[in-house]
Amino acid sequence: MESNRHMATIGFIGLGSMGRPMAANLLAAGHQVKGFDLNPAAMEYLAGLGGIAARSPADAAADVDMLILMVVNAAQAESILLAEKALDAMKPGSIVALMATCPPGAVEKLAERVLASGRRFIDAPVSGGVAGAIDGSLTVMAAAAQETFDEASAIFQAMASRIFKVGDAAGQGATVKAVNQLLCGVHIAAVAEAFSMAAKVGVDGKVLLEILSGSSASSWMLRDRGPRMLETGPEVTSAVDIFVKDLGIVMDAGREKKVALPLASMAHQFFLATSGRGDGLSDDSQVIRSYDLVNGNARV
Amino acid sequence: MESNRHMATIGFIGLGSMGRPMAANLLAAGHQVKGFDLNPAAMEYLAGLGGIAARSPADAAADVDMLILMVVNAAQAESILLAEKALDAMKPGSIVALMATCPPGAVEKLAERVLASGRRFIDAPVSGGVAGAIDGSLTVMAAAAQETFDEASAIFQAMASRIFKVGDAAGQGATVKAVNQLLCGVHIAAVAEAFSMAAKVGVDGKVLLEILSGSSASSWMLRDRGPRMLETGPEVTSAVDIFVKDLGIVMDAGREKKVALPLASMAHQFFLATSGRGDGLSDDSQVIRSYDLVNGNARV
Repeated sequence: MESNRHMATIGFIGLGSMGRPMAANLLAAGHQVKGFDLNPAAMEYLAGLGGIAARSPADAAADVDMLILMVVNAAQAESILLAEKALDAMKPGSIVALMATCPPGAVEKLAERVLASGRRFIDAPVSGGVAGAIDGSLTVMAAAAQETFDEASAIFQAMASRIFKVGDAAGQGATVKAVNQLLCGVHIAAVAEAFSMAAKVGVDGKVLLEILSGSSASSWMLRDRGPRMLETGPEVTSAVDIFVKDLGIVMDAGREKKVALPLASMAHQFFLATSGRGDGLSDDSQVIRSYDLVNGNARV
Repeated sequence: MESNRHMATIGFIGLGSMGRPMAANLLAAGHQVKGFDLNPAAMEYLAGLGGIAARSPADAAADVDMLILMVVNAAQAESILLAEKALDAMKPGSIVALMATCPPGAVEKLAERVLASGRRFIDAPVSGGVAGAIDGSLTVMAAAAQETFDEASAIFQAMASRIFKVGDAAGQGATVKAVNQLLCGVHIAAVAEAFSMAAKVGVDGKVLLEILSGSSASSWMLRDRGPRMLETGPEVTSAVDIFVKDLGIVMDAGREKKVALPLASMAHQFFLATSGRGDGLSDDSQVIRSYDLVNGNARV
């Protein structure tokens, strides 16, 4: 048996490309994990690692210290907690950890329902992608009461290398995640805009990329997506439709709080148009196709 | 005496905050430098380092292998070459190196005039700022015929650590510099937009900066300007009005080539408004004041 220091019983709902390795890391750290997903293969994977395949969301939530939701969106989280009665199944005082990327307003409303039921809530989205989920190096941006944060952090440590408390109020974690995605999305679109302008005057993209990567114009996205923008049909590391969704959440967050976000709004338009032409499943670097189309560049 | 390998006689017009250390580095490398500037203190400085204080632009241009223009804008470069007759004073076959940041179209026109006169031209703007000018680590983005590029590069080495040939045609160097400034300006405005959104929901800026600096949302500008955005009245490392000008050049370049640049256009509006309120000489990080004003944040 593992040491039971910090050992917890955890329900984990949403065993997709992020959730699966996160649950695996919880198991590896010695926690007990009851998982649920509609995909039977994901359940078999978890059971193969020593986890428990739950029969339903409510079954996954029963008798756990913390229920982690790594689902597709806020509507799915609400459906699981309320319609599927996972919340009712939880012990009084146990914690709901919403780790999916959701609009802050929806997170606030869910938190109210959870707190009113006598359970606790932590708004705890992550960044770091599938690679970070696999090697346990995610960043958690959490908002919760201090005691809840402290208890949840002890568990998050199995999945994350950086755990931040960004505030006490549910929705603040989701806002920080939205702000993170705002910059990511704008940076990708800005690289596309820059490359499209240079292509118009016949400057070689590879030389341009080398210059910009070493100057004050550089960004994480320039160095990561820039090379793939110069390819036609590059490997998909993250799809256009992810930013259609995430910048959509950014704009929802801005609408809820009545904040003007002109750059994010403009970047979103280009991801939308790219998806609308049928390129939604392409690598997100291919937002450059919309710039090249509108500017009449030959690369397209 | 220094070795005369690669030693050249250079005219240098525009001994401002960039030009002065660039000329000093040319002298330190063993080149002969004839400088001209309207500011007598700049001329005395150059003479003190062993350079020659020219009596006029034409005097600085006479009998040199290369005439470097590090002036304020394209209009000043044209005035010096044509109205002030520096071009007429140059030897046939000698090189005009335009290293100031100018709109590509203006650079193309100047190059035509220079080539028609029997002199050569290199479009060679730089990035790296005053710090790079002082320690000789500038990046040169040059466009010229190969032979001209090779000769000029031997001289640029005294001022730059990275020298790129981005094309053969004048205007391509200026375009790459514009593309560089497009990304810099958009990145600064994007950080301001992101911080303004987070401030609206009460997230602490320092925690936010730490999260974003270590995530895929990071950029060179986030790490450099981000800390100063959280200060009121920070030290001025580069003024708002520099980006009013440089994003203006980006938009001019887009207009000349008829390229749509929606993100750059939007970012420019916020630098313009910041300058228009009287903050043009503040640090460029203070573009965040426009976001905070428009979004009603208390930081302003």
